[in-house]
Amino acid sequence: MRTLYTLFLFVIMAMPFRAENKKLTLHDLIPGGKTYQSFVPQNIKQLQWFGDQLTFVKGDTIYIAAPDQPQKKTILLTKEDFSQFGIKQLPYITFPYGKQAIIEFTKGDTLYIYDFKNKEILNSLNLKGKNNRDLNRIAKNIAYTIDNNLYISDSNNRTKAITNDTNTGIINGQAVHQREFGIEKGTFWSPSGKHLAFYRMDETMVPTYPLLHAATKPAKVNNIKYPMAGTKSHHVTVGIYDTESNDTIFLKTGLPKEKYLTNIAWSPDESVVYISELNRGQDSLELRAYDAKSGKLISTLIKETHDKWVEPESPILFLPKNPKEFIWQSERDGYNHLYLYNTDGKLIRPLTSGDWMVLSILGFDDKGENIYIQSTEESPIEKHTYKVNLKTGKRTRLTQGKGMHNVSLSDNKRYLIDQYSNLNTPREIAVIDTKTGKRYSVLSAKNPFTAYNMPEISLGTIKAADGKTDLHYRLIKPVDFDSTKKYPTVVYVYGGPHAQLVTDSWLGGARGWDIYMAQLGYVVFTVDNRGSANRGLEFENVIHRQLGTEEMKDQVKGIEYLSTLPYVDTNRIGVHGWSFGGFMTTNLLLTYPEIFKVGVAGGAVMDWGLYEIMYGERYMDSPQENPEGYDKSNLTKRAGDLKGDLLIIHDDEDNVVLMQHALRFLDASVKAGTYPDLFIYPGHEHNVRGIDRVHLHEVITRYFEKNLK
Amino acid sequence: MRTLYTLFLFVIMAMPFRAENKKLTLHDLIPGGKTYQSFVPQNIKQLQWFGDQLTFVKGDTIYIAAPDQPQKKTILLTKEDFSQFGIKQLPYITFPYGKQAIIEFTKGDTLYIYDFKNKEILNSLNLKGKNNRDLNRIAKNIAYTIDNNLYISDSNNRTKAITNDTNTGIINGQAVHQREFGIEKGTFWSPSGKHLAFYRMDETMVPTYPLLHAATKPAKVNNIKYPMAGTKSHHVTVGIYDTESNDTIFLKTGLPKEKYLTNIAWSPDESVVYISELNRGQDSLELRAYDAKSGKLISTLIKETHDKWVEPESPILFLPKNPKEFIWQSERDGYNHLYLYNTDGKLIRPLTSGDWMVLSILGFDDKGENIYIQSTEESPIEKHTYKVNLKTGKRTRLTQGKGMHNVSLSDNKRYLIDQYSNLNTPREIAVIDTKTGKRYSVLSAKNPFTAYNMPEISLGTIKAADGKTDLHYRLIKPVDFDSTKKYPTVVYVYGGPHAQLVTDSWLGGARGWDIYMAQLGYVVFTVDNRGSANRGLEFENVIHRQLGTEEMKDQVKGIEYLSTLPYVDTNRIGVHGWSFGGFMTTNLLLTYPEIFKVGVAGGAVMDWGLYEIMYGERYMDSPQENPEGYDKSNLTKRAGDLKGDLLIIHDDEDNVVLMQHALRFLDASVKAGTYPDLFIYPGHEHNVRGIDRVHLHEVITRYFEKNLK
Repeated sequence: MRTLYTLFLFVIMAMPFRAENKKLTLHDLIPGGKTYQSFVPQNIKQLQWFGDQLTFVKGDTIYIAAPDQPQKKTILLTKEDFSQFGIKQLPYITFPYGKQAIIEFTKGDTLYIYDFKNKEILNSLNLKGKNNRDLNRIAKNIAYTIDNNLYISDSNNRTKAITNDTNTGIINGQAVHQREFGIEKGTFWSPSGKHLAFYRMDETMVPTYPLLHAATKPAKVNNIKYPMAGTKSHHVTVGIYDTESNDTIFLKTGLPKEKYLTNIAWSPDESVVYISELNRGQDSLELRAYDAKSGKLISTLIKETHDKWVEPESPILFLPKNPKEFIWQSERDGYNHLYLYNTDGKLIRPLTSGDWMVLSILGFDDKGENIYIQSTEESPIEKHTYKVNLKTGKRTRLTQGKGMHNVSLSDNKRYLIDQYSNLNTPREIAVIDTKTGKRYSVLSAKNPFTAYNMPEISLGTIKAADGKTDLHYRLIKPVDFDSTKKYPTVVYVYGGPHAQLVTDSWLGGARGWDIYMAQLGYVVFTVDNRGSANRGLEFENVIHRQLGTEEMKDQVKGIEYLSTLPYVDTNRIGVHGWSFGGFMTTNLLLTYPEIFKVGVAGGAVMDWGLYEIMYGERYMDSPQENPEGYDKSNLTKRAGDLKGDLLIIHDDEDNVVLMQHALRFLDASVKAGTYPDLFIYPGHEHNVRGIDRVHLHEVITRYFEKNLK
Repeated sequence: MRTLYTLFLFVIMAMPFRAENKKLTLHDLIPGGKTYQSFVPQNIKQLQWFGDQLTFVKGDTIYIAAPDQPQKKTILLTKEDFSQFGIKQLPYITFPYGKQAIIEFTKGDTLYIYDFKNKEILNSLNLKGKNNRDLNRIAKNIAYTIDNNLYISDSNNRTKAITNDTNTGIINGQAVHQREFGIEKGTFWSPSGKHLAFYRMDETMVPTYPLLHAATKPAKVNNIKYPMAGTKSHHVTVGIYDTESNDTIFLKTGLPKEKYLTNIAWSPDESVVYISELNRGQDSLELRAYDAKSGKLISTLIKETHDKWVEPESPILFLPKNPKEFIWQSERDGYNHLYLYNTDGKLIRPLTSGDWMVLSILGFDDKGENIYIQSTEESPIEKHTYKVNLKTGKRTRLTQGKGMHNVSLSDNKRYLIDQYSNLNTPREIAVIDTKTGKRYSVLSAKNPFTAYNMPEISLGTIKAADGKTDLHYRLIKPVDFDSTKKYPTVVYVYGGPHAQLVTDSWLGGARGWDIYMAQLGYVVFTVDNRGSANRGLEFENVIHRQLGTEEMKDQVKGIEYLSTLPYVDTNRIGVHGWSFGGFMTTNLLLTYPEIFKVGVAGGAVMDWGLYEIMYGERYMDSPQENPEGYDKSNLTKRAGDLKGDLLIIHDDEDNVVLMQHALRFLDASVKAGTYPDLFIYPGHEHNVRGIDRVHLHEVITRYFEKNLK
């Protein structure tokens, strides 16, 4: 019913909870706060699949239950079962080999792989200095890195160094390309574990950025490689290590050396490695097959281009029952969908289509006839799981109940653990039998705020500045709302790609600080402008070469909507955001001073020319290709336009948005005769985490209280 | 009449000027402001001695006049005389060889020494990359440094490298010991210019501090050697270069290597070099004589110790007519005075004494019978010039008119250019004939503020917290003062050693910002607490091992005095200071929150353990020797005591008080749950200079206006 959905303005609303006089504190509401955990909806510890059985932790006991009788638990393991390890509190465990009675856990610096049936330590590994651990289930080899080199340890604890680079500008076995393009790791075991593909990144040519670390006496510098837009980029190659011959070859990915080697995948027979190769310009993507033995290019199977950008984010996935066919994900029709290809590069058929997007693939069923996916088909602010028949394309929705569902498949793929929330539902956990559709409830969490006077939260849509696109907003009225009063408003914004703030999840996705501000008498408003996530390609790529422009127009539409509400005081509108949201906050104050009077910009990008290549050039092209775009979005050149109150907050060890952004904006303000305010969180990176986050939100709150109220 | 002076509370007062409605702006009042020069009392450009004749510049002409007829000027040189140099505007000139018709000036990167009578270029030197220029008048050699090495250029432009150190941790020919102990340069010509003594500093063992320079893309680090209190210090030695033999020897200053070699002086016959050697503990000073040929220690002439500190600041000075006798300056009787010694180290007699101090020696008269000095004998807030007879000790005051006199002696020492101001006198310039005492007026500057409604400024004294010592204060009433009103007050503070803020000079030494705040309706108050300059040893060294403690008690005495004034609103008292004054400001807010509600602390020392060795250990001893003192004065440990509004301002390239002070205080505040504010001036060093200084004072002003008013 997608068409109808876009025709009507729909509003769903969370009713205010019963009123009492208690007030929530920042410690209650901010992650890291002393009492924060008391207000996280009830959950089940370590709920996971052990084969096709449920396991979870209560107290010091690990329980097990049948999937269709989750309430009928029996003891699997107790703390005493770990006594030989000197463990005082149950560790976090996983079941690395499916239904085998084997668990993995760490104690101190040691990783144990332990057969709890036979009470036998199968393997132990001292993890000190080791990172990026990657276990292969079949061969039982563990790959890991120490500093910039890659190692393998087998089940007998025999260790081999796979690389031996002494130049610290060369990094092996780690995620590359700034973790863009879906890259989260640097090692890729072949199915059998006999071969290991790994990234090698040469960043010796990448400029160094010095991060000042002020905690030591004297301060010291931590030099990082930071590839700024328009400068030289790193060179990535892919090595293939053969555990039997001990040989390493490198795939002949050739020239130019500046390109993105993304989404590495093995063929089922382990003879071929597939790479989604993207040019530095990020407008031409090729799926290439390389011979895993010789490293030679076998063929280019698929080519996709776009005059704005192409963004590969998922590796290809072979059909379990047909090693000649695989699934390719593409936004070519405007939304991310699945396409069935064969290894000749021939499109067999699209598996999904429509004006909604596939969010992720969960896996195949045991017969290999269906694939489980998550998608936005129901609504862009919901996430549901579907079974898609590979032959017919027929989709069956498996998750019920409005909202955002996160699921995990059991070993035999028959059962799902389904965990979801929506605006009024804190957390529901159930097991779903994908065969029968039956649902076995595990937990219905209580509302943790019943003792408090909570604000009314509503979700709805408005039209974007293009006059046609629906934008989703979240509106929070002040606690103790009085419709005859006029309230100040704080807009919480992100606005950049890859993020969605408004979802039909608990409290509508509102953050604790939003609730806190509503308690203090603010309207709190958020709208996901064009450019944000989960709405398809065109919605997103309107931002190309002009970051901020269209995004801000949509934010202004949000303000226009607010101005229709009689209780909103349009003379007292503030805005707050972090990172891209800091860029938006600053930009909104500079561009629309008649609307936005007070802003708090955290970790803000002030000049895209100081941001990194992978993310930056995707959206902006390079500074050489798009000087006007960089110029126009360079807030340091517009510091003189500041009229309202702007608090800039930055972390002095921010390695994502460098503190140089803030310093150059300050310098520009000094030269232009404008007066932003400033705060710095020493020792923090791209956000303020831990208990210091409470301090941060007190600082933000005080700024609005002082200047907007 | 010193005794009387300390018995009575005396008040001198500047009457408010006639009222009009114009307001002074920060650009009018702050150095670097666009219109600042219009409000500097009228002056005479390049007024100096050419032998015993006066010269000065008006427009594009250099004039000359007889000392006793300063108004009867004739043309010495015009712009046209410089036409061969392509000079469009008259350069700054000096007369390096006294009354010889020779001038020195620079055009672009070139230094010219030019005989303007014979129109002959005697020497020219490309200064690019050259620093620390030091000309010997007799031999006409110029010493200078390039990077860390020392060179000499003779009058025929032949250049020799005196040192050849490739290790950049070794510095030759530059000021050492952080420019403490009166050290301002690193080269010392023997009288004839045949020998050059120079400093060599090995700072390879000194910790490096990384200053972040954010103006480049990417930011870069400027590593400086910063010897933090308690850490390893540099090793300084003294080289002697012989221009005839081209040999360099080093004085055998021996062990320990960590000591201070200060106040280098040559014997008149050039055979001996004298050094005031101070131990690292700074409590034992020895005047040592070294053989300039062999470098061997000849003798230790004088030894002075003190259980707090000894601080040599002036080299010995030989009598012109007796090469066996010299003048030694010492605070041994509690005030800096002159002592006549012979080269056997025997005290012949004190030349001056009393509860006042010699500020500087200007030189001898032509017969060598008298010495000219400046002292505080008249008043600690005035500075006068005296002639002291070397035989009888008889002092004759040469400068008349209350206030601060700065003088310069003519070539034959008969005449003084005397330039002075006092509370009500913007600037008076005259020539004084030291023989007859006659005064020939050169300039009486007009009050530059006559068109403005100025505040009433008064100077006075209060008792220090010790109950006996007089402290000098400056009180500025608000413009348009109304005695029935209650006004907020801003205390401007420095409070550290080596500085004096309250003097009987123009506006009482008030800064432009003080006047600006008075315009905005603030009382502006400054008191020089114990520890500040020009009051003698005991007044100063009460701060030893406990920086801040006694200084703050005296500041509280200032507030007690203010509270006796009916128009001061004691609920609205703020404080502002920079550097040591930033330390005081922060400390006052933390220690006396019931008094000080708002503070602006610039470039503040927050932890003396992060400050440098020479200054820091003099006053605090080392952290190892005085852990309690460092702990108690460490404001980062007391960040939790912050109750009022504190704005911390720091320059991110501050190489004196490192930005680490601010960052660590912020971090401590975050941990302690307190909320200082912050601003940073990127690219500035230990203060904000140039036009950005106007922005700084707008920021400071806004902070008080927002939080104190």
